[in-house]
Amino acid sequence: MANVGVIGAGSWGTALSVLLDDNGHQVTIWSIDLEEVKMLNEQREHAKKLPGVKLSDKMVITGNLQEAIEGKDFLVLAVPSPFTRATAKKMCPYVAEGQKIVDVAKGIEESTLKTLSQQIEEEIPQADVAVLSGPSHAEEVGRKLPTTCVIGAKTKKTAEYLQKAFISPVFRVYISPDILGIELGGSLKNVIALAAGMADGLGYGDNTKAALITRGIAEIARLGMKMGGKLETFTGLTGIGDLIVTCASVHSRNRKAGYLMGQGKSMQEAMDEVQMVVEGVYSAKAAARLAEKYDVSMPIVTAVNQILFEGKKARDAVNELMLRESKNEHASLPWPDEV
Amino acid sequence: MANVGVIGAGSWGTALSVLLDDNGHQVTIWSIDLEEVKMLNEQREHAKKLPGVKLSDKMVITGNLQEAIEGKDFLVLAVPSPFTRATAKKMCPYVAEGQKIVDVAKGIEESTLKTLSQQIEEEIPQADVAVLSGPSHAEEVGRKLPTTCVIGAKTKKTAEYLQKAFISPVFRVYISPDILGIELGGSLKNVIALAAGMADGLGYGDNTKAALITRGIAEIARLGMKMGGKLETFTGLTGIGDLIVTCASVHSRNRKAGYLMGQGKSMQEAMDEVQMVVEGVYSAKAAARLAEKYDVSMPIVTAVNQILFEGKKARDAVNELMLRESKNEHASLPWPDEV
Repeated sequence: MANVGVIGAGSWGTALSVLLDDNGHQVTIWSIDLEEVKMLNEQREHAKKLPGVKLSDKMVITGNLQEAIEGKDFLVLAVPSPFTRATAKKMCPYVAEGQKIVDVAKGIEESTLKTLSQQIEEEIPQADVAVLSGPSHAEEVGRKLPTTCVIGAKTKKTAEYLQKAFISPVFRVYISPDILGIELGGSLKNVIALAAGMADGLGYGDNTKAALITRGIAEIARLGMKMGGKLETFTGLTGIGDLIVTCASVHSRNRKAGYLMGQGKSMQEAMDEVQMVVEGVYSAKAAARLAEKYDVSMPIVTAVNQILFEGKKARDAVNELMLRESKNEHASLPWPDEV
Repeated sequence: MANVGVIGAGSWGTALSVLLDDNGHQVTIWSIDLEEVKMLNEQREHAKKLPGVKLSDKMVITGNLQEAIEGKDFLVLAVPSPFTRATAKKMCPYVAEGQKIVDVAKGIEESTLKTLSQQIEEEIPQADVAVLSGPSHAEEVGRKLPTTCVIGAKTKKTAEYLQKAFISPVFRVYISPDILGIELGGSLKNVIALAAGMADGLGYGDNTKAALITRGIAEIARLGMKMGGKLETFTGLTGIGDLIVTCASVHSRNRKAGYLMGQGKSMQEAMDEVQMVVEGVYSAKAAARLAEKYDVSMPIVTAVNQILFEGKKARDAVNELMLRESKNEHASLPWPDEV
């Protein structure tokens, strides 16, 4: 049994709190929104963000950040990516030397091109920062449907400790040392999910979507490996696995925003209709800058940026992707009739 | 412009015939079923297998195998996998030295564990055998929705020739020298599609399915690489791409049969209801034998075989998969705190 502080009471933070509570841990959830704290304390359910999932009476819900951090065996940081750095800065004074923090959000800071764990380490240098990622819609974890995730950590010791805390009969946890690969896959996949949503909105079929997913992870892997991530990670649960779930799902905001744009809406109209943070729109810009910085060809990322920010029609972009110069699927595989 | 013989008038043979005809080639389609030949010649549409897709008057439809083969620049072999060897044997007397044959079916012969191109080469040693595979439902190719495929061939020359013949604004073709990897991915994916269908039938969500797909391709790649296939192929269009489309799709017979079994039907009841060849059931046995022969751990393939042939309940199998010994996602990645 561990004492756990969960920072952020959105759908993912709430679902993981319920999982950890089910696993027998003492969970304290923090929210910045005192109305939300009051509502959760009274109703023991987040009717808006995770309907139908009960919070046990054992869980503590608080608006006091210090209370959620001090003395906890580990922390789960579950605020949306645009708020990660600011939240980490506020957390810093209460975090002990070597205290474990598992970040469960995804994103890349546009101005610095840093991943979330890198931002957290800058703001809380004394923390032992890990990440949790994988194909895991909060709604389904809340409903206790079988789910797999990966914990990335700097040491096997931390990874195994956290694996043991999270694992359950419906939540299978693998471990990995490739934090960077996990974070890049998780952030950049949202750009591909936007593209897959656009293809759906254009009325294209499963063939088109599977092509976008497969070629999408190929270009993410090309970039990610150049940055230091591992191929295995991009072809694993936190790479292609997470991309598949995002592109297939009716829950995904990124896919939905893309769908609306495929149907002809502007980026702003789509974001207004989805009414939640559409991380892919931010990640698209960061991905394009990374592609330039590391000199990697990312045709799908480029096309998504042209659609989002340069007024290109989604249909024209798909046509151009289909008609690019024909080539080997994998340039590195040798042909016997070529020297 | 090429003269092309398409052997087999099922949904995929018909869809590819229409694609090649649209590309300006002279297409002759052969069917073993003289009723089908008569019907296609009269109606110029395969109302049962590919409804709504017109065959141009330029296409020749014949029941004469010799007519479909002799003098053709290349052949497309599009019969279901259980009939590939027998059809190849009948084709052999008419096939010229070096004549190109593109196999477009998928499967592994249970008795010999040979892929389809290996069977064709045994039966027609004088042929230049290639394969075409990828995420490509015939129904969507027939409707001209954007689709990507890979041509695998023994020489780049043949690959580029065929690429040029098939490529179109809605059908993007890559090339690859890894014929074996392409065929293994295409055959073994049907076993994973059965498992994904079972998960759907059990009422599980996108998280579970994405996990099965991702861990499924990981075990296919482990086996396939030991057999000589390339990792890039299993993580590419003909591997994960084809698996995604099969697992996501309402068109897939393998997914549908799995769905029915997940809902509690027996294998025989499911096959009767789907009323078409369910290749995954044959491939499951072959995959289990290959796993044993090459000494590779394939937990999902093992579970599917237990469900199909040993009466194990699908729900129990999923529970066991979730609760296996916890481990690294990728055993090969090193940890800094381990020597």
